[in-house]
Amino acid sequence: MSELAAATAVTPVGDGVYTGEIKSGWDIMGNANGGYLLSIAARAAASEAERPDPVSVTAHFLRPGKPGMVRIETGVLRSGRRLAVARSTMIADGPLVAVLGTYGTLEPSNHVERLESGPPDVPSPDDCIPIEPTETFPPPFMGRVEIRLDPADTLFTTGLPSGKPRVQGWFRLHHDEPIDTMALLVAIDAFPPTIFNANLPIAWTPTIELTAHVRARPRSGWLRCAFTTRFITGGFLEEDGEIWDESGTLVAQSRQLALIPKG
Amino acid sequence: MSELAAATAVTPVGDGVYTGEIKSGWDIMGNANGGYLLSIAARAAASEAERPDPVSVTAHFLRPGKPGMVRIETGVLRSGRRLAVARSTMIADGPLVAVLGTYGTLEPSNHVERLESGPPDVPSPDDCIPIEPTETFPPPFMGRVEIRLDPADTLFTTGLPSGKPRVQGWFRLHHDEPIDTMALLVAIDAFPPTIFNANLPIAWTPTIELTAHVRARPRSGWLRCAFTTRFITGGFLEEDGEIWDESGTLVAQSRQLALIPKG
Repeated sequence: MSELAAATAVTPVGDGVYTGEIKSGWDIMGNANGGYLLSIAARAAASEAERPDPVSVTAHFLRPGKPGMVRIETGVLRSGRRLAVARSTMIADGPLVAVLGTYGTLEPSNHVERLESGPPDVPSPDDCIPIEPTETFPPPFMGRVEIRLDPADTLFTTGLPSGKPRVQGWFRLHHDEPIDTMALLVAIDAFPPTIFNANLPIAWTPTIELTAHVRARPRSGWLRCAFTTRFITGGFLEEDGEIWDESGTLVAQSRQLALIPKG
Repeated sequence: MSELAAATAVTPVGDGVYTGEIKSGWDIMGNANGGYLLSIAARAAASEAERPDPVSVTAHFLRPGKPGMVRIETGVLRSGRRLAVARSTMIADGPLVAVLGTYGTLEPSNHVERLESGPPDVPSPDDCIPIEPTETFPPPFMGRVEIRLDPADTLFTTGLPSGKPRVQGWFRLHHDEPIDTMALLVAIDAFPPTIFNANLPIAWTPTIELTAHVRARPRSGWLRCAFTTRFITGGFLEEDGEIWDESGTLVAQSRQLALIPKG
């Protein structure tokens, strides 16, 4: 079992209720990473629905997650031949994360496929910049996985952001451990926020909601990841993500909505 | 009250439960339009959360909706200063649609804004093609709202699809009735699917999940709408939507995931 699989494991205790643990070290300034919380809550729902893969999962973030035991309440709303729909709510003192998702068994498609655009153009992992975690910034979470950033997107670390709200690079688990579809839910929220490169007077943008679509089970190896923001408007911004595996397969797509706190 | 507001009205009956009605005529081949169902379920959740606007709402579609009375069970998971999170499930004989959403009060932002791209380039409404509903195709639903399509995107109606999975055009309510943010949830799912223009041997692609982000309350008048698909792969396709109002404001963004049935 990978370190990530162990850190997101859940145990059924009956009546659709599961227990799990927010492990320490998976945090950013003391609050657990959102994708990590989603992965735990999705595992519980998928287990209850008896399907291995998240096909489309949406998390709304209610309160920050701190290390410690959590309870996940699940309910299966529909169980069909190909897909099942379930909800799951992670609870500590109060509800932390609410998830609604469709789960299934992903298999190679026998259909004609069409891609209007290909994988993002990212320098090779050897030409990208590893993130070295610290107790503050980069946060401890970054040490739980391997992330390498496109040098063009690391300008924010120099105090001179690129001006382009984009962050791309590579992701893999430690020791190149196999990545399953639940681990993709961590990868999809693992990179520094695009706003860091926007060169705007906005620092902290809490995520309201994150939706991930998983298209395929990834092959092992580096995952090519790209995150972009097009619209910073109305007090909100979206961040769109794509993850491609080394075989050139689109494995996941995501969009999150973040809030711009009032000045 | 607009015809749409009347057709999506809900009545509280206590304990977070609401009643509503799927009106006849809002269907496509006998099944109610997904955005229309979402609008009803979101109205119930927003009412329970005491917030007027859907900020981010996700619907998973469980079973087709037929005309008749429905029950909507809601639950508020968090009620904060700016935002509230609530779920709502529409039920007839069984659950039809499950919705998880964040609701609030949208106000003009006092923040710096940044748009990486502008409104889509669509010919003026007078130069676009109105959709005239029929009992079969175009379906009755199209007669409940006013839709005009970019001529370049109507090629599928001639049996010679453009080959580009895109559909764009204009939307407004009958008699130019005012459009509120709940009506945007109908607009975001009102257009013919992009797959019609893909020129692939795929006809029917049921929507698994639809997420809409609402950025601003729209001004009256025509809404400029664009829907595109980039990835038809893994047995799924996404459809991304944008809606802009006549003042050039991005009012909503959406993504839906549809299933490609096995051949």
